[in-house]
Amino acid sequence: MLGNFTYHNPTKLIFGTDAMAALSDELRAYGPVVQLVYGGGSIKRNGIYDQVMRALADAGKTVVEDAGVMPNPTVEKLREGVAIARENHVDLILAVGGGSCIDYAKGVAVSANLPESVDPWQKYWVDFDEPAADLEVIPVGSVLTMVGTGSEMNCGSVITNHETKMKVGHVFADVRVFPRFAVLNPEFTYTLPRYQMVAGIFDIMNHITEQYFSGTDDNTSDYLAEGLMRSLVAASRAAVRDPRDYEARSNIMWCATWALNTLIAMGKSTDWEVHMLGQAVGAHTDATHGMTLSAVALPYYRLVMPYGVEKFARFATNVWGVSPEGKSAEELAAAGLDAMETWMREIGCVMSTGELGVTEDMLEGIADSTLIMQGGYHPLSRDEVIEVFRASL
Amino acid sequence: MLGNFTYHNPTKLIFGTDAMAALSDELRAYGPVVQLVYGGGSIKRNGIYDQVMRALADAGKTVVEDAGVMPNPTVEKLREGVAIARENHVDLILAVGGGSCIDYAKGVAVSANLPESVDPWQKYWVDFDEPAADLEVIPVGSVLTMVGTGSEMNCGSVITNHETKMKVGHVFADVRVFPRFAVLNPEFTYTLPRYQMVAGIFDIMNHITEQYFSGTDDNTSDYLAEGLMRSLVAASRAAVRDPRDYEARSNIMWCATWALNTLIAMGKSTDWEVHMLGQAVGAHTDATHGMTLSAVALPYYRLVMPYGVEKFARFATNVWGVSPEGKSAEELAAAGLDAMETWMREIGCVMSTGELGVTEDMLEGIADSTLIMQGGYHPLSRDEVIEVFRASL
Repeated sequence: MLGNFTYHNPTKLIFGTDAMAALSDELRAYGPVVQLVYGGGSIKRNGIYDQVMRALADAGKTVVEDAGVMPNPTVEKLREGVAIARENHVDLILAVGGGSCIDYAKGVAVSANLPESVDPWQKYWVDFDEPAADLEVIPVGSVLTMVGTGSEMNCGSVITNHETKMKVGHVFADVRVFPRFAVLNPEFTYTLPRYQMVAGIFDIMNHITEQYFSGTDDNTSDYLAEGLMRSLVAASRAAVRDPRDYEARSNIMWCATWALNTLIAMGKSTDWEVHMLGQAVGAHTDATHGMTLSAVALPYYRLVMPYGVEKFARFATNVWGVSPEGKSAEELAAAGLDAMETWMREIGCVMSTGELGVTEDMLEGIADSTLIMQGGYHPLSRDEVIEVFRASL
Repeated sequence: MLGNFTYHNPTKLIFGTDAMAALSDELRAYGPVVQLVYGGGSIKRNGIYDQVMRALADAGKTVVEDAGVMPNPTVEKLREGVAIARENHVDLILAVGGGSCIDYAKGVAVSANLPESVDPWQKYWVDFDEPAADLEVIPVGSVLTMVGTGSEMNCGSVITNHETKMKVGHVFADVRVFPRFAVLNPEFTYTLPRYQMVAGIFDIMNHITEQYFSGTDDNTSDYLAEGLMRSLVAASRAAVRDPRDYEARSNIMWCATWALNTLIAMGKSTDWEVHMLGQAVGAHTDATHGMTLSAVALPYYRLVMPYGVEKFARFATNVWGVSPEGKSAEELAAAGLDAMETWMREIGCVMSTGELGVTEDMLEGIADSTLIMQGGYHPLSRDEVIEVFRASL
């Protein structure tokens, strides 16, 4: 059932092999000073940096560089970015990279005009406050070089605090936090290492299942989610066979955006518990986000499956094409998770947290970092959290 | 394959049984004079008019009434609306109704500030020009009372010229033409006569199939389309059994919006030929839009099926659950269209143009009004147009 909700997603997506040609025109809509956010410098090796700099020059912008955004952006880096934005009176933050860069850019965008006495970590990622209506939020734009997070078309941002061992996401209930535009060229993902590509693919799948596995209603959102999952499975198999398959890469990029741009959550409650578990692993290991999810997902889903067996049975049939004939709902549901496992192994997902550096003695600490959420089929007890982590080792 | 495209849809959708409560706040973002557009007055009988007037009063607006928008809005009515907008220096056009009211409101919005020497019909619906960048487009908002057209979240508008027997749609390539907001309360559709409800349901299905039946690529858009169709079929069966089934009505309303808000057309070529055929019937009979589509759709699809047999076979399996076992592609494709026919008869679609008042002697004239489009599996010849209309009688 679709209850009460508001859908409002004004991000302009410019998609395809020619997308970069539109960048300078997009930039002209903003003021003169651009904070250019990127990561470790791979964009300098693959030529994307030069293309972006040319577009910035064409549009007559003054560029303030803000490089070195790490895969799980930290609160220390966030404070650095805020200082840069304040000092230079930045008019636009342009993130060139994947979800980490865009998440970070949003963090800077909402924090730069806070009173200096307010700590952005406390305000946004601990207290989950919203930016005040009269607080100026700096516009964010993006050039996407890695798919998975959907950050290019949503209002979420994940920041990590190593001091408190917390990796926390905030979905801002403020339309100003959505990127104003995103340049999506699937070819930009060709040079991504296979490990990152696969991590991104599982991240996308998990974004969809996080929203899909809740409720018992017949809901259009779930049908859309099934369509996205079927497209993703087909495209990921093709991309693993040939990483330069444009059709596959373009479909994966498009699935990623729609997997997490609020659409398939409309009218649904969600708990995002796999992300809570994976983010706790990430806070203790700094492992690649998508692989923390793949390492914990199956033990988690097998544990909660009995509480939502009908939906897991539907998942088996509608996503994986498992025939219901001669199977009980439980058998069908289990067969669906088995089919997902086969696909995960086939594309090369990390299947255990041990591979990510987790050891038995770390489990209690990781459990301490795990947020327990309501809204899914079954909120975990502390013992169940430990059980999932132990089964994931 | 997803080629080059831009997706930008900034309409804010406020959905659910409480959606009207947000209207006055939305209205506050616009200037003081509101042109209130509605149809034959059913909103006065079901109480929606009073709710809208209260929200307008709460927001302190001056209301200029513009009632009597007909089911297929005419160019004469459009000229009337333009005169009202000019005379009153309107700040917002609020359409309360279905697609006809919203299409009409968009027509007024783009035309009101044209030089008086420019005829909007010629400019927008004959020459397919775009509003100049420096031409002010009046903002449009809507309160939806009938589902089907998707006009609440797109930039299209269909206007009919009885003098030239042309019913023509223009999809404006201008983001300013999208409604700024839409209030979607599924309960508002409870009082709709069954004929109108069924016409709306088939209109939605046809919006999806028009975009689905093209190309041979594996494309995320087609997977999303399949999800929407499966949701629509399930929900429409429930709504026909019980018109006050909120879950069914809410899913139908949501499917309608996403069936035609540009998303599932991304990266695709489309011909919209069923709409061209149906709109020609509409121009000669003034019949209900959705029923003109249902009357011509099957003869058309059965004629073009051999040119896109693989997609029609996929449609049979992925939308209608037809087993491919023991069937050739042609047999599977045919079985899919048969399954659609069974569903159409079950929900009560009009299955022939004869029921809409078309007679054999009108066929040549209707064919003269039919635009032949490229982009699908097979552009019709004149003889084939006549063949489809004869088979539809």
